[in-house]
Amino acid sequence: MAKVTPRAQDYSEWYLDVIREADLADYAPVRGCIVVKPYGWAIYEHMREFLDRRFKETGHVNAAFPLFIPLSFLQREAQHVQGFSPELAVVTHGGGEELEEPLVVRPTSETIIGYSYAQWIRSYRDLPLLINCWNSVVRWEKRTKPFIRTMEFYWQEGHTAHATHEEALEEVMRILDVYYDHMRADCALPGFRGRKSLYERFAGALTTYSVESMMGDKRSLQSCTSHDLGQNFARAFEIKFLDRDNTEKYCWTTSWGLSWRLLGAVIMVHGDDQGLRLPPKIAPIQVVIVPIYKTDAEKSIVFETAGRLFQTLKAAGMRVKLDDRDETPGFKFNDWELRGVPVRVEVGPKDVANGMVGLARRDRPGKEGKSFVSQQGLAEHIHTLLQEIHQSLLQQAEHFLHSHIRECNTWDEVKEAVEDGWALAPLADNPANDEFIRNNLTAKTLNFPLDQPEGEWTCVVSGQRVRERALIGKSY
Amino acid sequence: MAKVTPRAQDYSEWYLDVIREADLADYAPVRGCIVVKPYGWAIYEHMREFLDRRFKETGHVNAAFPLFIPLSFLQREAQHVQGFSPELAVVTHGGGEELEEPLVVRPTSETIIGYSYAQWIRSYRDLPLLINCWNSVVRWEKRTKPFIRTMEFYWQEGHTAHATHEEALEEVMRILDVYYDHMRADCALPGFRGRKSLYERFAGALTTYSVESMMGDKRSLQSCTSHDLGQNFARAFEIKFLDRDNTEKYCWTTSWGLSWRLLGAVIMVHGDDQGLRLPPKIAPIQVVIVPIYKTDAEKSIVFETAGRLFQTLKAAGMRVKLDDRDETPGFKFNDWELRGVPVRVEVGPKDVANGMVGLARRDRPGKEGKSFVSQQGLAEHIHTLLQEIHQSLLQQAEHFLHSHIRECNTWDEVKEAVEDGWALAPLADNPANDEFIRNNLTAKTLNFPLDQPEGEWTCVVSGQRVRERALIGKSY
Repeated sequence: MAKVTPRAQDYSEWYLDVIREADLADYAPVRGCIVVKPYGWAIYEHMREFLDRRFKETGHVNAAFPLFIPLSFLQREAQHVQGFSPELAVVTHGGGEELEEPLVVRPTSETIIGYSYAQWIRSYRDLPLLINCWNSVVRWEKRTKPFIRTMEFYWQEGHTAHATHEEALEEVMRILDVYYDHMRADCALPGFRGRKSLYERFAGALTTYSVESMMGDKRSLQSCTSHDLGQNFARAFEIKFLDRDNTEKYCWTTSWGLSWRLLGAVIMVHGDDQGLRLPPKIAPIQVVIVPIYKTDAEKSIVFETAGRLFQTLKAAGMRVKLDDRDETPGFKFNDWELRGVPVRVEVGPKDVANGMVGLARRDRPGKEGKSFVSQQGLAEHIHTLLQEIHQSLLQQAEHFLHSHIRECNTWDEVKEAVEDGWALAPLADNPANDEFIRNNLTAKTLNFPLDQPEGEWTCVVSGQRVRERALIGKSY
Repeated sequence: MAKVTPRAQDYSEWYLDVIREADLADYAPVRGCIVVKPYGWAIYEHMREFLDRRFKETGHVNAAFPLFIPLSFLQREAQHVQGFSPELAVVTHGGGEELEEPLVVRPTSETIIGYSYAQWIRSYRDLPLLINCWNSVVRWEKRTKPFIRTMEFYWQEGHTAHATHEEALEEVMRILDVYYDHMRADCALPGFRGRKSLYERFAGALTTYSVESMMGDKRSLQSCTSHDLGQNFARAFEIKFLDRDNTEKYCWTTSWGLSWRLLGAVIMVHGDDQGLRLPPKIAPIQVVIVPIYKTDAEKSIVFETAGRLFQTLKAAGMRVKLDDRDETPGFKFNDWELRGVPVRVEVGPKDVANGMVGLARRDRPGKEGKSFVSQQGLAEHIHTLLQEIHQSLLQQAEHFLHSHIRECNTWDEVKEAVEDGWALAPLADNPANDEFIRNNLTAKTLNFPLDQPEGEWTCVVSGQRVRERALIGKSY
């Protein structure tokens, strides 16, 4: 039935098939760019709304900064320009004339926001400054994949300034938790919070934290990052404040971002061979009602009940759709399974007579997910069911994640582990070790998880004694 | 008290002063670009939310298309490329290399969306296609003004495809009404719906409709446009469908846009010499509570009542702020007046004793706007008051608009009228007449209003007999 390549056969093809068949996105006529179609964009809008609410609840406000950045701005922070130079899109002409100074299409906005912060911040009373932006950025990527790595991508970028390093660090961890909670509670996505290795940190940061998620092919996706920028950008852009003690000091800044690649994670973590499986909270359609009939007489009585149930569920605040298309039930079942609608309600003539409906939950395959329930109290029933489906998707993903992580103590164990998941192995945070891993495996250091037991082990690469373990695995 | 130039002295300075003092926006270090600060962006977010809801209620869905457009795409529609060529920002380098074909940063997306529509639309069953995008676009403007005309600006652009010209025209007018209703009902902005002259229409359109608003200096602002694109873009991009009669036909397309310049209109139409005056529906803060006290003892009892009222108003769903800053009441009054908060609640020790509060409404000056009301039922009272303030702002703007429009029947009358408002004058829709007006006045044809009496008059420029009158005035 399904028009998607089985995952076991070709995971990459499966991913592209799901995106096409579920009508999420299309290729654009510009290399490495995608068009996000209405159904895909509706999912992203829900994700954005949940995350935006979390930002506002934690005291952040939104603003908008320009798309273009003078090239010289990027050059003010040495690490930053080194990291981003190879990926820049450069505007050299405007209004029919060659520009005196080329403009870069923002790959991220630390520099241009740093410039404004330097104007806006005068005293400790102006701190903390907690601003978020929803926008798109451009990075000239060589190999692209819809949502996961595209030349232009939509994301949010937060930029904050603080009076002390301690407060900045609190912010970095607060946001990491906001992301982690958003992923779990809104998107049913588990993951590991942790510190990126020095080798893998953001260009210009002291420390980068991430949440790493395991996709269905056991590769990792860095789902989001939160950076402690120390005083690097404050010094580069002269972001200073007059402190309580009447001395002028550099601010401590942070930045953090989460992009539409999280929608890629939703597809890859929850999807199955029938297509998409959407967590109810971010599903554009949470419940679809499919009328089942053979004759015109049946159609009429079935539609009456289906229409009434549609109104009931809608009034209960659910995003519900009555599929009144002139197609077979089989076609419709397949179509809504592809699109990952969490709950399907089937209404046939018998159901009308018995005051029942058939229910199919997308999180469980075939018969296992089917049941018959009374039309009475249907809204309450489905309301609870949607919560159950969220939990069930989260649990399935957690089970998958944990059953593909292996604690390793030797290099040979790591080599074996990354063939079928991630290794959790003692590692010294030294770029030489990262390079060794990258050169000898098709894997890399993902992060040093925040939650790990106390202990002392031997680094699997350098043999040094270390007090922490890193996740190592293949990644996107 | 106020830190803004009086309007009568220098309207342009007044506008910039209000933007700065109300903390709406700042200049960016890129020519012609602005940074929208959190308070300004919060207003725009409210406007966007209201408009987005109206789009969705009328059957539209959101999507996202790329920022970059291959230069050759623009060249496919002759009028379109001619209109936009002088305003383009061009990316010539990406990823460290010169591009084979330059990319244009979208000035508007008809062309790249046309390309996708040609892929997506196969049959009449795929129509109408009703898509909207919230994004930013870039036009290399020579003279810029915050919100009104900036190089990069945020807007929404809708793009629809239809099976017949009739349906496309219905869409064009439906959207014009959506805009008009949004302006009046959400932003308290009156205006004139009308057809742009052939000379002033959008590059590539058959017909453009607009809403023209009168700013406080009596110049017009084209607040939004809705275009009948005929089959121009369908032919350029091969947007075809198989109709019911089994023949292949070109689609009829429309496009329409409303930008953050409407926020510029809100500032200019409603603002006064004390600063901003915000319509309650889009005000980030609808009610501010200012505690008034002299001693610590007074402070404590006043804050208790103020805190209770804050909770009451918040629970009633209002966006309320308790100003607990360590500043004088005079400073706070001035500050919130600058920022245009619709209602101020003052609580002093006497008010606490009497169970009263002082109210000041921002839409009426000084004493005229002040009253004392009971703390009992305060939420209901303010709820009604906010609706009254909306109506009052709309009426004031309408009064101003109508008292500065003069019906004219001769060129001399037009010349005089545009010195202090707009002329409504018989005009033949002929580009030669537009050019004559532009060459002889510092004014132009605004639009031909949809609502006008039946009749026949003599064109004030050409002397031809005509059946419609145009608005003529200075404009932004």
